[in-house]
Amino acid sequence: MKPLEGLKIVDFSHMLSGPTCTGMFALLGADVTKIERPKTGDGFRNYTEHAGPPGLSLPFCAANAGKKSITLDFTKPEAKEIIRRLVKDADIVVENFRPGVPAKLGVDWDSLRQINPKLVYCSITGFGHSGVLQNWGALDQVVQAMSGLLWMNGEPDDGPVKVGFPVLDTFTGYMSVIAILAALRRRDITGKGEFIDVAMLDCALKMMGGPVASHLYTGELPKRTGNRGYRMVATADLYKTADGYIVLGANLQLQFEKFCRAMGRPDMVTDPRFIDHEARSANNALLRDTIIEMMRDRSAAEVEALLAEAEVPVAMVRNLAEITSHPQFDDRTLFAKARMPGREEPITLLSAGFQLEGDPLEVGAIPTLGEHTDSVLATLGYDDAAIAALHADGVV
Amino acid sequence: MKPLEGLKIVDFSHMLSGPTCTGMFALLGADVTKIERPKTGDGFRNYTEHAGPPGLSLPFCAANAGKKSITLDFTKPEAKEIIRRLVKDADIVVENFRPGVPAKLGVDWDSLRQINPKLVYCSITGFGHSGVLQNWGALDQVVQAMSGLLWMNGEPDDGPVKVGFPVLDTFTGYMSVIAILAALRRRDITGKGEFIDVAMLDCALKMMGGPVASHLYTGELPKRTGNRGYRMVATADLYKTADGYIVLGANLQLQFEKFCRAMGRPDMVTDPRFIDHEARSANNALLRDTIIEMMRDRSAAEVEALLAEAEVPVAMVRNLAEITSHPQFDDRTLFAKARMPGREEPITLLSAGFQLEGDPLEVGAIPTLGEHTDSVLATLGYDDAAIAALHADGVV
Repeated sequence: MKPLEGLKIVDFSHMLSGPTCTGMFALLGADVTKIERPKTGDGFRNYTEHAGPPGLSLPFCAANAGKKSITLDFTKPEAKEIIRRLVKDADIVVENFRPGVPAKLGVDWDSLRQINPKLVYCSITGFGHSGVLQNWGALDQVVQAMSGLLWMNGEPDDGPVKVGFPVLDTFTGYMSVIAILAALRRRDITGKGEFIDVAMLDCALKMMGGPVASHLYTGELPKRTGNRGYRMVATADLYKTADGYIVLGANLQLQFEKFCRAMGRPDMVTDPRFIDHEARSANNALLRDTIIEMMRDRSAAEVEALLAEAEVPVAMVRNLAEITSHPQFDDRTLFAKARMPGREEPITLLSAGFQLEGDPLEVGAIPTLGEHTDSVLATLGYDDAAIAALHADGVV
Repeated sequence: MKPLEGLKIVDFSHMLSGPTCTGMFALLGADVTKIERPKTGDGFRNYTEHAGPPGLSLPFCAANAGKKSITLDFTKPEAKEIIRRLVKDADIVVENFRPGVPAKLGVDWDSLRQINPKLVYCSITGFGHSGVLQNWGALDQVVQAMSGLLWMNGEPDDGPVKVGFPVLDTFTGYMSVIAILAALRRRDITGKGEFIDVAMLDCALKMMGGPVASHLYTGELPKRTGNRGYRMVATADLYKTADGYIVLGANLQLQFEKFCRAMGRPDMVTDPRFIDHEARSANNALLRDTIIEMMRDRSAAEVEALLAEAEVPVAMVRNLAEITSHPQFDDRTLFAKARMPGREEPITLLSAGFQLEGDPLEVGAIPTLGEHTDSVLATLGYDDAAIAALHADGVV
């Protein structure tokens, strides 16, 4: 059996954070029913900058494979009964509307707990259901700025640089999975569901737990270190080679010595200017210039191979093409095939990101908008005539 | 009851990724016994660059509050029996040694499953237990480089910039929590434990699931966008104000119009050069220069207040001092007090990062090295004489 087989999720979420959460549940075997607006569906299906065919942008596919899609117009009176039947036997509800919107739509915790008090209800927002910021508009880059995360990245003398992908949307989605699975364990014992309040801002700070704790203790701000490692030594930094960038991670004395020998400079090991951490810190600029010189005429691949062989922490700065084609994954189950509607060949998506027994987990098909409306309504007890009427009235 | 009350974890992990995982379990109410080397303990207790008193660096405290600490020298013959007793009744084992090391220490999955077949055993490594990279040395910054994550950050024309804190250590720790909780649900039904293989590299790619899926579909590399939003418009970017940086997130037409009005430039709404997304894209440099001009003489706080009032997505780039003192958290349960040994006043750490019912979760005390050795040995059936002998022999 799959690890989360038997769990039923009603998914009112859209865009990225919520669907990332429920996407993990779908991968792990839960039954996820995604509720979408008729006609347009989840805004992530069609998003100007996303690759992919109409209605099936790749980021949408990545987050929603394996779910059932049904359409529902919340404003129609018949929607209420459909929601009631959906939620009655569900274990989990996930939504990521702004605070207050679920109540207007009739899908807030107070309404749904009346139907099913065993429900675990997870609300994902930018800033949570309390606090002065709760109605502040949340975009990934806005929360990166607000949270201190953006401030942490970049060269000390330059401006801050954001993380180049929506890291807080995905991180918050996965933190929501933790919250839900923990609440479910408690529910299975107490028989009582609960409301979970997950905020992107809180998650951003949690992600930086170490620096935040240090700051709260000392009152000092962390150093913005650019590409240098936390020990601020020249042998743990980023360098330009003849054809690309390389990152060194030689923090320890032994690693420094191995580095020098591997690069053909054993003399540096006994050079008083570099003899230990203190000496190297004092002569940091000289050491840095020396390494810049070492790297200039070599290829990144050559340096990486040399240093890896010598057991010095190192990696070329790879782009997504270079890493996704790496032979490393020939023996892993990270990538998986999924059926994309309208395409004969399956596409490649990511599996769970960790390997459980019985892997590879099968990645389910990507749903077209409303693909499962009729079949789900049938399981909820609607007959063919009733389903036809719901379509005719624009409810689904 | 706390959500994970009753779960027993034996924690062989050290540094950051593993302790982040088991730290979340401790916060949620599980019983976590941390095994440390006698005398030195977890290398994260004393780490040159970390703030905090000896043996209690703040990043160590953040990840290890609420755990029990016992010391154990794996090389002593008596260690085997102590491990047997610890593992016999445990639900979960977590370790983050390099592949191969647990077998040498006698704490690998194949050894421990003999003692307790219901065990969920989670191994966290840089590159996993399979694949050509499995013995590659893993540091956060090395995996950032290897995974394509580092390549994604930075200005298009500059070199790549890493994330300024160990994002992959923490993210991988939390992904491990998901993997373990999912495996536990299956174990509770099947009665069978299992081995979980979590790799930082896999998690890094999973974190970038959308861009990875897009790349695998199109073969194209994502754009490195610096501080610009994904729509690459000038009204969603970072700007310097008179006293700091501000991030704008005005992607939509209505947001652009609100932005112009709030900034006192309603004329721009009807200016043909900025009339719609296409026009603004064509005149991007001009629009950017206009906004630079707008921001130059205003304070970041003033711009933030103006635009927030107008419902334009916006945030000042705050540092950790500015965000952790924000009144937002007066009504949240994100921060919590924890007892630090040798200090009368509790220190402030982060709670779970999400709010469950019955919050605030109490954050347990930070353990000194071996603080619980005797009490844990007593619960394992060792009497005072036996415990004294174990101390005398340097086993604990």
